[in-house]
Amino acid sequence: MQPAKLTQYQQRVEQHLHLLLARQRQTDPRLLEAMSYSLLLGGKRVRPFLVYSCGTLLGANLHDLDGPAAALEALHSYSLIHDDLPAMDNDDIRRGKPTCHKAFDEATAILAGDALQALAFDILASHPYQQVQAPELVAMLQTFASAAGYAGMCGGQAIDLAQTNQSTSLEQLEQMHRLKTGALIENAVHLAWLCSPNRVPAELKALLGFARALGLAFQVQDDILDIESDTITLGKPQGSDTKANKSTYPALLGLDNAKAKAKQLHQEALNALAGLPYNTDELSAFAHYIIERRF
Amino acid sequence: MQPAKLTQYQQRVEQHLHLLLARQRQTDPRLLEAMSYSLLLGGKRVRPFLVYSCGTLLGANLHDLDGPAAALEALHSYSLIHDDLPAMDNDDIRRGKPTCHKAFDEATAILAGDALQALAFDILASHPYQQVQAPELVAMLQTFASAAGYAGMCGGQAIDLAQTNQSTSLEQLEQMHRLKTGALIENAVHLAWLCSPNRVPAELKALLGFARALGLAFQVQDDILDIESDTITLGKPQGSDTKANKSTYPALLGLDNAKAKAKQLHQEALNALAGLPYNTDELSAFAHYIIERRF
Repeated sequence: MQPAKLTQYQQRVEQHLHLLLARQRQTDPRLLEAMSYSLLLGGKRVRPFLVYSCGTLLGANLHDLDGPAAALEALHSYSLIHDDLPAMDNDDIRRGKPTCHKAFDEATAILAGDALQALAFDILASHPYQQVQAPELVAMLQTFASAAGYAGMCGGQAIDLAQTNQSTSLEQLEQMHRLKTGALIENAVHLAWLCSPNRVPAELKALLGFARALGLAFQVQDDILDIESDTITLGKPQGSDTKANKSTYPALLGLDNAKAKAKQLHQEALNALAGLPYNTDELSAFAHYIIERRF
Repeated sequence: MQPAKLTQYQQRVEQHLHLLLARQRQTDPRLLEAMSYSLLLGGKRVRPFLVYSCGTLLGANLHDLDGPAAALEALHSYSLIHDDLPAMDNDDIRRGKPTCHKAFDEATAILAGDALQALAFDILASHPYQQVQAPELVAMLQTFASAAGYAGMCGGQAIDLAQTNQSTSLEQLEQMHRLKTGALIENAVHLAWLCSPNRVPAELKALLGFARALGLAFQVQDDILDIESDTITLGKPQGSDTKANKSTYPALLGLDNAKAKAKQLHQEALNALAGLPYNTDELSAFAHYIIERRF
């Protein structure tokens, strides 16, 4: 079961990304091609969905939400390009297609990632907002930079590399995921909240709690799918975590306990939503979709 | 002859960078070590000098200028780490020391660059400004992102890679330098102007003209030093441009004409300053220093 608006929001952010890429002044066509290739490779668009869904819930302008939705996707896309590089996870396939350094070359992939990170900040800073004022935009850029960097996603990827081939505790694994993917997922609801005219701190807290549980549930499910799914459904090689000696929830807890962990996090996510004075059916459906997905 | 305040500004930005690094919450110590290693490797600190010197000229608060000065240096530092990678220029030595991927490893160097780019935006967005207001800060972040990305530094590096081993026209060489290094050098004076209480567009234009000529003069001189200097003075292998089949001004124009070009650009830089109603001796001295430097 897919949330009703998932396809609509996926199409919306993709249309906006197309527009943004088409507007780039030509400097080096091959670099732009590599950036577009990775940015438009599809994907679930989890972060844009959270921006649109949480933002509209809180009364934000849908047009304004295009900025953070596209910015988060550009940032996420850069991180995938760099994670796939030979010196990092050395992956050849992403979303059923050759990874950026395979489709182009390593130098172009490094630069495409670098340029997409800059583009992410550019999109967020330069979006023609209708309701968001400068002080809120500055706050958005501050949280975005923090989620992207050493204290967030980059730090998480460094911990992931350090944990590979090492024995890891459950706490260390969670800390890694909370930074590597959790930071951006939490940032999606944070940016949506900052775009909204009525900002109640207690509601931000509830939404961040939802995002935190959802982000971790997503990772646990990812680890389970790496064992239970197949390469074609996944769009990336099945069993790659085990092969790469990555720490995973099934490896640490066993498969059944990992599934119980995913269920528990799902419940935590729903509990967090319960505190909000809105109809949160769409976010509940999304959490359900994340847990039940097969790819 | 070195401008009177060069050492003072170098020390100021380094002190601020030390402070910013010390404040980072520990996530992955090795990643932070790699970031610090590259950020504190020294260097001429050209961009911070321009921020401080232009900013104080225009009446900006010196404390406020620490933000853009440190942000530009973090961005510059990330670009050097990635340019040195095996897939890019494959350089082992930078400023007389092992490059980041040699001192650490390739994965750490990629991540350190990524994290420094995010840190650059974080520094610029989160600096505790005293005089700069939110709308000006948003404008600063917009110009900074644009200078960093596809339309600026990243695009320039892509053109540089594409030009290697290719015959290049003088126009193409200039376009590459204007993006690869010129974009950040121009951004330094632009950020300084945006930090200033009295912003006269004509003065920005003059300062950008100065920065554009200075940035290009710097590159021409770099190409000349690659032929005329020696490895120890340079802190990087002498003759590396020729060895890497890079397009250079001496290769295109001959050494004497390249020297004439540097002089002409120096004069253009001074002419641009002449239109400003301030004492621009410090900036003139800096332009002189850039042209006369031996490393």
